[in-house]
Amino acid sequence: MEKRQAEWIWYNGDYEIRQLNACLTSRYEREVFVPPFWHIDDFCKNVKFVKTFRLKKKERIRVLANGKFNIIVDRTDAPLNSYVRNYKGYLDLEEGEYKLTVSVYNETEIPALFVDGETVRSGPDFLVTSNDFRYVPAGCDGLTDPNCPPGKFRFSYQEVDFDVLFRNDKELFLDCKKEMMGLICLENCAGSGPVDIWYGESREEALDKENCELTDRLILPQKSRPDVSKAFRYVLLRAENADLSAVEILREFHPQARSSRFSCSDPRLEKIYSIALDTLALNTREFFLDGIKRDRWLWAGDAYQAFLMNYYSFFDLKTARRTMIALAGKPPVLHFMNQIMEYSFYWIIGLYDYYMYTGDLFFLRRMLPTAKRIIEFSHTRKTADGLLEGKEGDWVFVDWANLDNRGEVSAENIIYLKALDTVAKLCGLLGEDASAYAQEYEEMRRKVFDVFWDESRGVFYYSRVNGKLNRDVKRHPHIFALYFGLLDEAKKQAVIRNVLMNDKVEKIVTPFMRFFELSALCLAGETDPVYREVLSYWGGMLDEGATSFWELYDKDCTGVEKYAMYDRKYGKSLCHAWGASPLYLIGRYLVGLRPTQPGYRTYELRPCLTRLAEYSVTLPLNEGDVCLTYEQGRFTVFAEKTDGVLRLDPALYDTEAADADEDGDRIFRIKAGQTRVVRAGIKQEGNPQ
Amino acid sequence: MEKRQAEWIWYNGDYEIRQLNACLTSRYEREVFVPPFWHIDDFCKNVKFVKTFRLKKKERIRVLANGKFNIIVDRTDAPLNSYVRNYKGYLDLEEGEYKLTVSVYNETEIPALFVDGETVRSGPDFLVTSNDFRYVPAGCDGLTDPNCPPGKFRFSYQEVDFDVLFRNDKELFLDCKKEMMGLICLENCAGSGPVDIWYGESREEALDKENCELTDRLILPQKSRPDVSKAFRYVLLRAENADLSAVEILREFHPQARSSRFSCSDPRLEKIYSIALDTLALNTREFFLDGIKRDRWLWAGDAYQAFLMNYYSFFDLKTARRTMIALAGKPPVLHFMNQIMEYSFYWIIGLYDYYMYTGDLFFLRRMLPTAKRIIEFSHTRKTADGLLEGKEGDWVFVDWANLDNRGEVSAENIIYLKALDTVAKLCGLLGEDASAYAQEYEEMRRKVFDVFWDESRGVFYYSRVNGKLNRDVKRHPHIFALYFGLLDEAKKQAVIRNVLMNDKVEKIVTPFMRFFELSALCLAGETDPVYREVLSYWGGMLDEGATSFWELYDKDCTGVEKYAMYDRKYGKSLCHAWGASPLYLIGRYLVGLRPTQPGYRTYELRPCLTRLAEYSVTLPLNEGDVCLTYEQGRFTVFAEKTDGVLRLDPALYDTEAADADEDGDRIFRIKAGQTRVVRAGIKQEGNPQ
Repeated sequence: MEKRQAEWIWYNGDYEIRQLNACLTSRYEREVFVPPFWHIDDFCKNVKFVKTFRLKKKERIRVLANGKFNIIVDRTDAPLNSYVRNYKGYLDLEEGEYKLTVSVYNETEIPALFVDGETVRSGPDFLVTSNDFRYVPAGCDGLTDPNCPPGKFRFSYQEVDFDVLFRNDKELFLDCKKEMMGLICLENCAGSGPVDIWYGESREEALDKENCELTDRLILPQKSRPDVSKAFRYVLLRAENADLSAVEILREFHPQARSSRFSCSDPRLEKIYSIALDTLALNTREFFLDGIKRDRWLWAGDAYQAFLMNYYSFFDLKTARRTMIALAGKPPVLHFMNQIMEYSFYWIIGLYDYYMYTGDLFFLRRMLPTAKRIIEFSHTRKTADGLLEGKEGDWVFVDWANLDNRGEVSAENIIYLKALDTVAKLCGLLGEDASAYAQEYEEMRRKVFDVFWDESRGVFYYSRVNGKLNRDVKRHPHIFALYFGLLDEAKKQAVIRNVLMNDKVEKIVTPFMRFFELSALCLAGETDPVYREVLSYWGGMLDEGATSFWELYDKDCTGVEKYAMYDRKYGKSLCHAWGASPLYLIGRYLVGLRPTQPGYRTYELRPCLTRLAEYSVTLPLNEGDVCLTYEQGRFTVFAEKTDGVLRLDPALYDTEAADADEDGDRIFRIKAGQTRVVRAGIKQEGNPQ
Repeated sequence: MEKRQAEWIWYNGDYEIRQLNACLTSRYEREVFVPPFWHIDDFCKNVKFVKTFRLKKKERIRVLANGKFNIIVDRTDAPLNSYVRNYKGYLDLEEGEYKLTVSVYNETEIPALFVDGETVRSGPDFLVTSNDFRYVPAGCDGLTDPNCPPGKFRFSYQEVDFDVLFRNDKELFLDCKKEMMGLICLENCAGSGPVDIWYGESREEALDKENCELTDRLILPQKSRPDVSKAFRYVLLRAENADLSAVEILREFHPQARSSRFSCSDPRLEKIYSIALDTLALNTREFFLDGIKRDRWLWAGDAYQAFLMNYYSFFDLKTARRTMIALAGKPPVLHFMNQIMEYSFYWIIGLYDYYMYTGDLFFLRRMLPTAKRIIEFSHTRKTADGLLEGKEGDWVFVDWANLDNRGEVSAENIIYLKALDTVAKLCGLLGEDASAYAQEYEEMRRKVFDVFWDESRGVFYYSRVNGKLNRDVKRHPHIFALYFGLLDEAKKQAVIRNVLMNDKVEKIVTPFMRFFELSALCLAGETDPVYREVLSYWGGMLDEGATSFWELYDKDCTGVEKYAMYDRKYGKSLCHAWGASPLYLIGRYLVGLRPTQPGYRTYELRPCLTRLAEYSVTLPLNEGDVCLTYEQGRFTVFAEKTDGVLRLDPALYDTEAADADEDGDRIFRIKAGQTRVVRAGIKQEGNPQ
């Protein structure tokens, strides 16, 4: 067995927290610096690494540290506890059993250690303490180059081919042809003095010097590129005393090793899928960001959706874990994540998804204490009646919509129920006592229905403020109750009929809430309206010339007003992670892929794309991909390393003979490494128009 | 009334924590960096300052920040919540009521704010939050220069006049004539290449290149002075390619505005007092350190004694508060201060002293939550029987002596009792509920006597390990019980007779424990043995040529061995704060000064220096000094701003007629600003030999 490479290690979680702080402090509104308005945790400057090992023969071990450090290396049978003196960069040790202790201190970057020998190599089997007398497994992120200790996140860069839209003696206007995150580089530009830069996600924005969201000022020759990359498609530059014709633009990105693929007989859907992939890729950097222009921050609710999209596109687990760890931060809990109450709950709920897609119990064990702390903290938000209500400093967000979120909000309490249920499940998986969570879940669930559900009307009311019911009927609580599986069959039908399919109930306008709404509809079997909605809503953005999907889209809003939000002319983000949800909707519900055992040990495909004559999709599993092709009335399925099943709804497909499950679906077993072809003609009548 | 100056403000406590981290990471053993082996807290990088104010007329307000920042200034009647754009360094505001919000982010130094206008000036009336939605009064330390934001602590420097003891073509050996903290400066030395430096508190140490504790290597011309100052009296320098004759030495120190003075007819005692002042002054830097050579760290137990010495010498409250705040750190409590259990208790106990000497309830209110958290944390160290016992990661220190501190240690529990009693008192002072602490105190006090006190022998046993009593009789528990006033008269006499005055009980050898022992004797009225001990123990160090007092002194240990400790040839610190206790013993017990109302609103002098024919002492009160002179059988007392009393024991002094108090002492009232002369002849018989 090949020994794994040595890698840089650090105090568990500190790399992620350090990157988070860099990320959260990269936000500018023109020249104004905008730091986060919540508490940020920090890395430990003073840590100690410990490793016990046995050498069967003499070994030279290289020990590098990022920071000021000292080394104690003791034979375990004769500890001297004295520092290595006149250290030359390595230790020559004879055969025997040793305990290596390295204390590292660093004020500006995370203290880190790199140990490399024939048999002793730094990795997660080293222990580390912040000197609080608790040892935890060291953190790592795959940084194996001894010359590159952890510091700034390492992005990739690529020169961009742009069009010059106009040029005069002072100004230059460029189009990079699609949305991107990048750096303007003037190293090769002759001249001196200030160069002003106005960025735009739209042409209008870049040309509106007074109102565009992002600007920069470089000073030639000493400052020839910005400190922080920016999001843009268009760039306007102006210099009084410089020749800008040698400007270069570098795209800054985080490359992905894997990616889903989708092609089909409808070029519009194919394009939607491809733009959704671009949108998520642009927002997948050191973390899953909300949007690259603004806020370029990590928000737990946005990340929850990005995780799900990611399982159906890049399956980038390192970025997912980095995001979850950074959001977890350090104890104590001072406020909800991003100060938004339900964002902490989404974070918890996402842990179980992570488990289903990866089977990684080691990571769950690490995250569970944070989940429990959030529940404990939430208890400080309970009213006398036991329901949650926002207190000072809490933001009960739910959605960008016309919502009054004072008091006990039904949607909020429903999301909390799912979080409670998740913690109970995680405790069960990890052999910890789940009973307190299970009991609280039962009690709160009863209370939520008692207080908010009107059986006669078959709806949830929106909230209760100081004991007084707010009888507004909004889509939100219904979407969450359906999506999180809290409704019995009768209530489910009532909710679909009375609210989700009822045009009189105010429409959802954000892709964020649309993610939940369309997912809930799919779970209720209503996939065809979802298919149509993907084409019209996301297709609508394509018609507006989008090269990435937006924070919010309203087809009735046209002209330059469509870029406005938050009372700012170009406040709207035109590349927002939550805009990429077709990746999830198509992969999870329309192609119908899901893990049927934790860690994708087995999978299921239950396609319902009956409006497409042909399509071919490659989606990531935990190990390898699965490819599904439909053409000429036949499915072809192949996954190299994982067994699975193709389930076909006989209402949709005319199939060859097969076993049926309890729902009547036809089951076709697919062996790992073997291609299976299944005949399945589309029944037009099974596909409601 | 003059408006106070604007000063730099920050998140409360962060300046002290930042200085603490700098202090704790300045320790080297030769070339080896030695960071603290406990958890260090850190400053908040992202903070927000808020101030509401009313302008009666137009005002220009200068706003400076140390870090990246943004400003929101809103009229309170019309808040817009938008950032100040194109900020030029000041705000011009019309008459009206405003809310000023400044967010500041800084990664390397504490984020800080400086606001200066005609009426609006930054100070502790500004509020600050670490964005956890809790606002606290801003911290400050009197930094009023807008051009010098908080950063490294600002020491003073002074060129030192040294003797050259020998010189050859490569080496130079210098004697600075007394112990100091300083920097070797080679800026004016011609030549290049490495210069090696060996430091010594003793001549022997500096000449012992292999074993001296402190070394440096400078490289000319680029590195001509060390990064970190060092403690030394002697310095050996060696250069292959440089002329060292232009070497300069800078003393680094923290100047004191006030100082006690003591002169008397015994030059040996006068010298002891003066060396004690030097010793404390050298250890009074950004904090009260333990020793300047090693560890140059802040230890709560050492600091507890330094506080008391300081009240009788420099009355430097800023350093005292800085020390207390830094030790308090940030929640949660992860371990005891410096990981030593009783050090946290000393910290609590010192709060009440601070109150008696200063009357500063504002500061107490700020510290009380930490005191409560320590008590709460201590509860995790209780055995089934309710006594404290060290757990893994705890260091039960008590003293450098032959002590077995496993299990329930009587001395440890006695110190905890005093801490509990102190928290109860502080709660009472601050109007908080003290009952839980008072009740725990009563229960534990009963338990301590039940378990450890042997009424028949009239002694405390040392400890109980796994239910088995360790019947060793050591001085330590007895000293603490006496010093903290836990004994009734009968037990007090038993303890003095059976232990303190019993030469068969192992002697105390550290000045640290001697501080408590001699104080306890004084409190029990045994001042004369203390007077003699001061002369013999501290006088003994003078005889060894000390220019500052040591970490430990044993008159039977001579030659170079007297410098050894911790298995290191020069491991002993020769300038240790706890060596300066004559300042306290003389001021508090032999001159007999103490506050009789909180904040030194009134004072008492009860001198008993009957072996001195003449002496004159000036000691600090909270406001101004008090001067006491004894000569020709008469006391002369003067304090400019504070009323007090001179109390004379008729067993010691033959006085003019006066009121007597309940103990029979003669009482002479001293009015502020008026000199009073009191005739008092020494009764030789009242002075036990």
